[in-house]
Parts: sequence; structure tokens; C-alpha cells
Amino acid sequence: MKKILLSLILLPNLVWSQSHEENIKLIFDTELSNGHTYENLRYLCKEIGNRISGSPQAAAAVEYTKQLMESYGFDTVYLQPVMVPKWVRGKKDEVKVLNSDKLGSVELSALALGNTEGTGTGGLVGEVVEVKGLDGLKAAGDLVKGKIVFLNGPMDPTLVNTFQAYSGAVGQRGSGAAEAAKLGAKAVLVRSMSNRIDDIPHTGNQRYNPDYPKIPALAISTQDSELLSSLLKDQKDLKVYLESHGKMHEEVLSYNVIGEIRGSERPDEIIAVGGHLDSWDVGEGAHDDGAGCMQGIEVLRLYRELGWKPKRTLRAVMWMNEENGLRGGTEYARVAKEKGENHIAAIESDSGGFLPIGFSSTGTDKQRQKLQSWKSYFTPYNIWKLDVPGGGADIGPLRDQGPLLVGLHPDSQRYFMYHHTAADVFEAVDQRELELGAAAMTALVYLLDREGLE
Amino acid sequence: MKKILLSLILLPNLVWSQSHEENIKLIFDTELSNGHTYENLRYLCKEIGNRISGSPQAAAAVEYTKQLMESYGFDTVYLQPVMVPKWVRGKKDEVKVLNSDKLGSVELSALALGNTEGTGTGGLVGEVVEVKGLDGLKAAGDLVKGKIVFLNGPMDPTLVNTFQAYSGAVGQRGSGAAEAAKLGAKAVLVRSMSNRIDDIPHTGNQRYNPDYPKIPALAISTQDSELLSSLLKDQKDLKVYLESHGKMHEEVLSYNVIGEIRGSERPDEIIAVGGHLDSWDVGEGAHDDGAGCMQGIEVLRLYRELGWKPKRTLRAVMWMNEENGLRGGTEYARVAKEKGENHIAAIESDSGGFLPIGFSSTGTDKQRQKLQSWKSYFTPYNIWKLDVPGGGADIGPLRDQGPLLVGLHPDSQRYFMYHHTAADVFEAVDQRELELGAAAMTALVYLLDREGLE
Repeated sequence: MKKILLSLILLPNLVWSQSHEENIKLIFDTELSNGHTYENLRYLCKEIGNRISGSPQAAAAVEYTKQLMESYGFDTVYLQPVMVPKWVRGKKDEVKVLNSDKLGSVELSALALGNTEGTGTGGLVGEVVEVKGLDGLKAAGDLVKGKIVFLNGPMDPTLVNTFQAYSGAVGQRGSGAAEAAKLGAKAVLVRSMSNRIDDIPHTGNQRYNPDYPKIPALAISTQDSELLSSLLKDQKDLKVYLESHGKMHEEVLSYNVIGEIRGSERPDEIIAVGGHLDSWDVGEGAHDDGAGCMQGIEVLRLYRELGWKPKRTLRAVMWMNEENGLRGGTEYARVAKEKGENHIAAIESDSGGFLPIGFSSTGTDKQRQKLQSWKSYFTPYNIWKLDVPGGGADIGPLRDQGPLLVGLHPDSQRYFMYHHTAADVFEAVDQRELELGAAAMTALVYLLDREGLE
Repeated sequence: MKKILLSLILLPNLVWSQSHEENIKLIFDTELSNGHTYENLRYLCKEIGNRISGSPQAAAAVEYTKQLMESYGFDTVYLQPVMVPKWVRGKKDEVKVLNSDKLGSVELSALALGNTEGTGTGGLVGEVVEVKGLDGLKAAGDLVKGKIVFLNGPMDPTLVNTFQAYSGAVGQRGSGAAEAAKLGAKAVLVRSMSNRIDDIPHTGNQRYNPDYPKIPALAISTQDSELLSSLLKDQKDLKVYLESHGKMHEEVLSYNVIGEIRGSERPDEIIAVGGHLDSWDVGEGAHDDGAGCMQGIEVLRLYRELGWKPKRTLRAVMWMNEENGLRGGTEYARVAKEKGENHIAAIESDSGGFLPIGFSSTGTDKQRQKLQSWKSYFTPYNIWKLDVPGGGADIGPLRDQGPLLVGLHPDSQRYFMYHHTAADVFEAVDQRELELGAAAMTALVYLLDREGLE
């Protein structure tokens, strides 16, 4: 059925239409009828799985996306070497309340944060001081000395853009261990970065302060955060056991994966589009960020399927190591500068494969106004917010080279159910939402290619 | 946590603000922090389950929503009697290919359509003629005599509003049996109304022509529709067995359930808001339409929680029998006319508990312009399409009484994965999406109440 529909659509359009509206409709129709994004994401999630930097699965993902782009006949497909950190979680993380008057011994759902040093076998026992986020930690001061700090700041549920709620709460995850170590704490527990009350712990990046001890840092689920908090209200001498085995190893050689279709008129002007290929070491990295990678590849594949030759050079990029180092994004920008490349725009999808409602961007007023002037091309597809500030982590390092930086901006209601968890699996991605995102990115690349940003 | 946040929000706002923006923010903040919609929907889905008109579960749903609204202290809660059809599926539906050269005997995933008469024990065997929708059936003409007609028209995947794709394909489900019977067919199989290829059959309403035989009509999953179609390409003498046990019984007394908060200034002007309480007899009727019912109740509950007294009368309505008769909506309008009631607006949520992106409406130009003039109050919540034509099935019969008819307009990408299937369960509903819809409806009721439509 899909094939029949597609050929019906394609036949009268093998010649490039003069109308942007028609070409963009062709992009959306083709993707919604016969897109490859969903099946490619299935392969990445189900046949490879999660792929933290430096892991064998990350290497498999490099090889898979390289072969995939080669199979689509892009003009060039190549690997860009980059050294990445290799953090390994090791054995199962464990957090246990030992002496609750009410409940006795209670196991909590936990995941060590990325880049942490584990307790090792034997674990660690301590009393717990609960604080609300980093401000609460600061206020607690010396009280946390020798204790386990429980950073229990919730995400604000009233923010419709849940990334704002994440930004408001994630400091305690990123710097909680470093700040608590300064104050002499022996470990930290962090409330998971979720806007739901459920039993799923969320891992994520944290950065130690090299001048202080590398204390263990583990996330516990929001449900268990509520439980622990309520137990602490009644019992100040509550003791918690924690055990984790995280370890940072020697750096490893890995790669950004790059595919190109060379421009026919202005090959030196580059439009980069993609996502990050690494994920955390749980789940399948479906929304974060398999979706963005497969959408990026799909942009170029649609050009091939439609028989379109871009004026400018289109480049699909799978950046490596966004999650715990940003080495890929940093190296990509360094090499671009060294080679004197001219990126006119870089587009990243790293907010999940959800319903696209707009684009976020960073650039000059003129660049951003040009982007916003294209709004009417997108509203037929319910994509209408083209004035959101933002961009993407991996494209950020390109900023001083002057391109317009763009982030695909999907609705964010469901993202923090899955982000950095075992629940971020292929089944959590909706095919049509994913495809609409891929089509939106292709339409934007098409407009950038045809119109430029002058 | 939720309670703490809420009281922080509420304390400075116990006095009604003069600013619509602030009051609407209060509605959204309260719902997203401490809404009841999701938990109430869980009860309806998990403790009662699906509830086709005339079933014991439909009676339980009447009692539950009545008690729920009473527990919230609405001024009046009452039942409005209405006679409803009682269709019972009976034993498991069965569709089987008997003699495939390739596969031998193959069972297909099937559900009899609503209101059908079953084959009874022993079933029915026939050769199959595949046609594409009602046009294909017309073209086939006499070829279908004595055969099983297989109506295999797909939903158009390129339509971003999937309800349009549904409208384009659903005729074969609603009238396929009636039209095929005219041509002497002995049964119909219908491709499920889904825009996915999966193994889930979708039931739904169909109407016989009283002048022709009531032939059995069953939906098969899209995956099995593709399979059957491909088998038929190679083998014209394919035989299919089908067995179903549907039966229409005597009509049953049931009820619309109505809760009111009486207006303080213009009590005779009514704003009705709700959804339909009946569902099909599979799954849990979560999106269709438990979501709309619970959102409707939540509108009035939020007024109570916020301590707001409406100027006009607010009425939450759970209409009965939308799915296979529309008796509740029809009776509601008849009684309103008989009593000389004055509805200024009626709002229905019956497009699923998904992310709200706007409102559809039917009314005078002036009414619809007034609605659209409120757009800026909704865009902060990513609700931006206020010019969609539409409304709702249950409120349709009110049309000649002059109110503005409004439908909550959520994004529709995921709706037809669940619609009328065993997959329409509580877990398919996202809490925040559901709550945003409830808050959007409350904000609209608030504006209608404060501003009217003059």
C-alpha cells in the first residue's frame, strides 16, 4: 500500500517544482508514506541497543550508521576520529534504607550517575541529610559533613516546556557531588530528573571538582525520593546503604560519523544536520538520541529518493559523546575551523522523537528572522514556533564560526518519562511523530539550501 | 510535593484576579500540579473498564461519575433518562483463511463491527472479492454476489490531521455491509481504521439498510488486511471462514449524567462541557472517551478548588451512547429545547486525551471570531489553532438552539492506534497531555463565562 501511494505521489514530481510549498509537501508526503526513519531507529535500538561512549555498542553504532549512509549512496561517508572518555557502570547499583522504624529494610530504585567513582564492594553506610537542590545544600553547610546528602529538588510541573523545568532542577545532578564533597559529605543521592512520580531512576552526567574527593553519586526514582523524604520526616537517624561500581577508564578512540551530498552550485557552503550517536548505558537510547541520528540521515536519504540535487553541501552528522564529554561536537567544530569550512547552518535533533512544533535557534538577528520568515511553510504541518531560543549541545561549539544553529523543537510533555532511563526504548517512540520531525528537518534543510540565509 | 507547590500557588490568589492571563495561568498551574483528571480516568478504566451502552459497566460508569461529581460538591448532580440500544458481541469473533496454497489455514485478527448480526455457531464460508472502499464496491457490482466482500481502503497516511484520513476511509465501515448486501454479498470484511500496520483490529459503528439482509461485518487488522490482499493476488479461489455472535437486544434505560454549578449573575445562560460515557466493548475506553468525561468534570472541580463562582451556569455532561446511536446527545438537546434552556456554548472533548493544540468550532461568524480573539490567552500553553471547523457528535444536536459548539482539538498522530480497540487503555494516556486538555477546556469555559459571546 505504502509503495503504491508513494509512486502515485512521485510520478508527477520527478521534475523539481518551482513552488516551495509543493516541494515541502512532497517531502512530508514521502516521509509519511514511505519513510525509513522508524525502521532504521528500530535497528539501532533493537539490534545494537544502548551505546555509551567507548563501548563496543558505540563502535557498532558507528559502523551501522556508516554502512547505512553508504547503502543510500551519499557522495561521501567518512569517520572523524575523536578520543572519548570510557565510563563503565559495572555491577548493579544498590541503595537501601537499613533501619526504618516503619518499614525495616527498604530497597530503593537507583542508578549511579555517569562519570562517578563507585563505592566498590562493601558499599558505604551513612545518615542522610535531605536538602532541596543546590540552594538547600548551600544552606545546610556543615550539617552535611560525614553524611549522605539527599538532593531532593523536584522539577516544576507548571512549566509547559519541560526542558525549562529540567534546567531548573538539573544543577543538583550535575554539581551536587562536587558541591557536597566540598562540604565534607561522603556521598550524594539525587532525585531523578523526572516530572512524573514513578519507579524509574534517571542517570545523567555529573562533574567532580578535581580539588575534592570523588564521592559516589546515585539517582533514585521520584517515587523512592518521596518515600525517603517521608521516612526522614519521622526518623532522623535513618541509615542508608549504597553500593556502586562506576569507574572511569582510559580514553578510547571513537568517531563522529559523517555522510555528505555535495552541493552542485555552492559546494563550499555546508548545512549540517544530525544528532548524537552515543547514549547512556541503560534502555536503548531511542529518544536520546537515536531519533535525532536517524532523522539526520533521513534528510539526505529523502534528497536521494526524490532525486534532488542540493545547491549547497548537505552533511548528516552523528556526533559522538554528547552525554558525558561533548568530545564529538567539540572535535567537529575544531576540524571545521582548521579546514576553513563554511557552515551556513547546523541543525540538531536532540529533544526526542516527539511531535515537532517548531525550531529553536541561535544566530544573528538576520539569520533568525530569515528562519522565522519561513513559518508559513511549516504551519500546514502544525509546526508553528520558529522563534524559540536554543540550538543543540553538539552544534554549540560551531557558534563562533557563524552558522545559524537550529534545534528541532518537539513537544516536551513526555520526554522526561524516558530521558536517561531503561524506559527509553524503541517502543516509546511514535512512528508518525518521528517521521514528522524528519520531514520538518528536511523541509528546513531544503529552504536553507534553496534560499540561503542572506 | 504536589500539595506544597499547590498551596504556594494558591495562597496569593484566593481573590479572583482581574487579569485573564493570571486566572488562566492559575488554572493551568493548579491542574498540572494537583489535577484529579488522571486519577479519575484511572478509576473509570481500571475499576470499571469498557462500557458499551446498555451494559452493566455503563451503569457503573453512570453511578461512578454521579458520585464523583457529588463528592466535589457541585450544586446539582442528576441523571437524565434515555433509552439506548443494547448490542452484545457474544463469543469471540473468528476469521480464518482456509485454503491458502502458501500458508494453509491462517487465523486473522478480527472484531465484529458494532450493531452487526452474527453468523451464529457454524459460521459461514465464502470466496473473497477485494475492493478498495465503497467506490471499489460500486465498481465491482455483481461480481460480489454470493461472496464475502473485503473492503480494503487504507487511511491516507499523508494527512497530518488523521481525522481527515479517517473520514476519507470510514464510509466502508459504516455502510459497507449495507451496500454489499444490496449487491447480494453474504458478508463483509473491512480493513481496520488505523494508520499503522499492526495486528490490532478496530471495531466501530455500522448501519444496516432495513430493506436488505443484515449480513455479518467484521474488521480485520491492517496487518492481516495486507496479508489477505497479498494472498488474493496469487489465489482467486481463496476461501475464508468467519464466525461471529453479535446480536441487538431490546433497548435499555440508561442516563446522561449531569453536574452543575449554578451561575451567580446569569444562571439561565448555560455552558455545557463534557464527553461521552459509553465506549466500545473492548479495551477500557480511555481515549474514547473516558478522557473527555474526566476533563469535563475537572472543569467544574477546578472552579470549586479555586473557590471561583461562575457568572453563568456551568454544566458537566457525560453523554450516553455516542458510539452506536447518539441517543444521549439527541435526548439532551431535545430536553434542553423542551425546557427552553439557553446554552451559550457546548464544548466536547472526544478526540482523545492527547496534547491539545487548539479548538474546533461551529457557530455564527461572530461567535467563532470571538473564540479566535482569545488566541493569545492560549498560545503560552502551545494551544494555537482556534480556527479549526468542527465541534462534537454529542453536542451537534444542540446546533439549532444557537450555542457555539466547540471541540477540544488535540494532536491526532496517535489516536488511530487506539481508537475502538483493545489497546485503548489507561496506559495509552499521558498524564500531562490529559491535564493540559482539561486546563485548556477550563480556560475556555472561564473566558466564555466571564466574557460571553456578545
